[in-house]
Amino acid sequence: ERSYKVTLLPGDGIGPEIMRVAVDVMQAVGRREGITFDFTEKLVGGAALDALGVPLPDDTLASCLESNAVLLAAIGGYKWDSNPPHLKPETGLLGLRAGLGVFANLRPAVVLPQLVDASTLKREVAEGVDIMVVRELIGGIYFGKPRGFDVNETGDRFAFNTMVYSTPEIDRIARVAFDTARKRQGRLCSVDKANVLQVSQLWRERVTAIGKEEYPDVELSHMYVDNAAMQLVRNPKQFDTIVTGNLFGDILSDISSMLSGSIGMLPSSSMSESGPGLFEPIHGSAPDIAGTDKANPLAQVLSAAMMLRYGLGEVKAAEIIESAVSSTLDKGYRTGDLMSAGKTLVGCTQMGEILLDAL
Amino acid sequence: ERSYKVTLLPGDGIGPEIMRVAVDVMQAVGRREGITFDFTEKLVGGAALDALGVPLPDDTLASCLESNAVLLAAIGGYKWDSNPPHLKPETGLLGLRAGLGVFANLRPAVVLPQLVDASTLKREVAEGVDIMVVRELIGGIYFGKPRGFDVNETGDRFAFNTMVYSTPEIDRIARVAFDTARKRQGRLCSVDKANVLQVSQLWRERVTAIGKEEYPDVELSHMYVDNAAMQLVRNPKQFDTIVTGNLFGDILSDISSMLSGSIGMLPSSSMSESGPGLFEPIHGSAPDIAGTDKANPLAQVLSAAMMLRYGLGEVKAAEIIESAVSSTLDKGYRTGDLMSAGKTLVGCTQMGEILLDAL
Ligand SMILES: CC(C)[C@H](C(=O)O)[C@@H](O)C(=O)O
Ligand SMILES: CC(C)[C@H](C(=O)O)[C@@H](O)C(=O)O
Repeated sequence: ERSYKVTLLPGDGIGPEIMRVAVDVMQAVGRREGITFDFTEKLVGGAALDALGVPLPDDTLASCLESNAVLLAAIGGYKWDSNPPHLKPETGLLGLRAGLGVFANLRPAVVLPQLVDASTLKREVAEGVDIMVVRELIGGIYFGKPRGFDVNETGDRFAFNTMVYSTPEIDRIARVAFDTARKRQGRLCSVDKANVLQVSQLWRERVTAIGKEEYPDVELSHMYVDNAAMQLVRNPKQFDTIVTGNLFGDILSDISSMLSGSIGMLPSSSMSESGPGLFEPIHGSAPDIAGTDKANPLAQVLSAAMMLRYGLGEVKAAEIIESAVSSTLDKGYRTGDLMSAGKTLVGCTQMGEILLDAL
Repeated sequence: ERSYKVTLLPGDGIGPEIMRVAVDVMQAVGRREGITFDFTEKLVGGAALDALGVPLPDDTLASCLESNAVLLAAIGGYKWDSNPPHLKPETGLLGLRAGLGVFANLRPAVVLPQLVDASTLKREVAEGVDIMVVRELIGGIYFGKPRGFDVNETGDRFAFNTMVYSTPEIDRIARVAFDTARKRQGRLCSVDKANVLQVSQLWRERVTAIGKEEYPDVELSHMYVDNAAMQLVRNPKQFDTIVTGNLFGDILSDISSMLSGSIGMLPSSSMSESGPGLFEPIHGSAPDIAGTDKANPLAQVLSAAMMLRYGLGEVKAAEIIESAVSSTLDKGYRTGDLMSAGKTLVGCTQMGEILLDAL
């Protein structure tokens, strides 16, 4: 009997509802596969702000660091939007990422055959899209210093941030990306803005060197970020694995996921050198539908599967969950975000029950 | 008889071919409308590197500054891709923008009814899209200092750039954007990353203040850049006018233009406080088809029209050109990039002849 400590962070908005479904699914698979989960639920984001006045309580980070893996739902909401920066839910998320040292964020964007029509792209453009965006998550302009506000010689206020990468930061994310590409179609596209930015010139130089020295079997290409954004809309099938910095990765992974037309379906993983990984859906906390039982829990359930596979090494349990999701879609069950003619509309709770039946 | 000094910068790749068509069209309209053009052709980009060893000769910038307006085609090509940064064609373009002080870059993205099917988006999503991206062009991380390479305490190399905006820089681009929105549907969406970046927090604060004080009639909204990129794919019709910084504008304007499926059709204008404006197609120099007479000259011709309208105040001449383009499309003539069943394929030169007939 294998046992794992998992910190659960339901967060805000629809977070608690979709987390409940994922926990039920994990428990069911655990019983079947002889896995015990030692779940600890903690506060983060707006929920933590309301209860404790900080977006990332020390106790939450400590619990995460003592776990084998962390499963997050979503954070944020209108309620905290006008808070000062250090009291925003997002600041808690950034602190969590940095605190866990999860530098490698993997965001798959797959157009599932059952859901091709959910894409706003033409069927022939969307069909078969299968992209993995590898985003550097704890460096770049998100964390770069100096940053802040000041007044210049002419008495005008100005504000500034620093986009910075060092060679070890680039090298380690490049290796994760090359390893990922190797397990996929063996093609890696590195995205930067090397025609304008020095930080991108170093990025390109290092990714090229790592590729040449350590991954000669992976086909490496480079693209400017403006062109990459455009190519994702023009012909997304040209991409296999994409590697890029924190800010460009934020933008490109959102475009990639939107291509699928169903961001309610997409999980993500964030890994550190050796500590626990962080697993979460790529969608937000959807405060407008929170508490109405309308949320799609599948991205959360697939994040749990990703956790089992990459965070805990429980590949079989992950596969069982993934095929339960797939068969549930095959049977025509859809939450509102993916509803179309001829399908059966279900709520969040009911989707969970159907998944449990499918297990 | 009105007379204007115009500096022509054909640049690289397909630049000279499409510029020739635009010049013929301007001459023809000029004869009809009693306008004389005093054209001076100068080198920039790769062409200048080959001839003079610098991407922006002093003489080129001087001629531009003495003109009433500057018409650029496109710069860059594989040939110069491995040049050191200061000897890249792009560096010439950035120097030209800075030298002219053209801080306000307007990039329209319109899905023409005749070309809806060229979009990779579904017809119902693409139809009727009409977005104007107002991009700050001579500030932000493109020009911010400090920038460069260094070695840190642990002996590792690192590289950095600074994203910086001052209040006057934000205020002046905000005013251009609000004015633009007022002439359109009266809706402005300001895009930033204020949940992470201080520079975006100042941006949001100033745009909000200018809106409240000077443009209470314009409907202002704010969006994070990752969400904006995603929304452009999900439902582009929600946007009227977008205002954003240099880097985000680079990315978002490329996505917007790709929505139209026909970047060979889209012009842009860049305006300063009082000097000559810079007008250019948004597409690149397409080195792979240079010299084959396959290029689509229409974005260049429409850039000339934009120059007449906004740079020289010759609205009637601009309208004549725009309706010649429209009627040429109506008659079914298409260059290769826009070719579809039932249309007539023409080359760059022939497209120019058809335009002259249509005038
Ligand atoms: C909430 C925000 C800080 C975050 C980011 O920018 O990283 C989000 O957009 C994401 O992509 O996970
Ligand atoms: C060529 C490059 C420097 C330029 C930019 O990034 O501004 C181009 O992408 C553009 O959008 O005009």
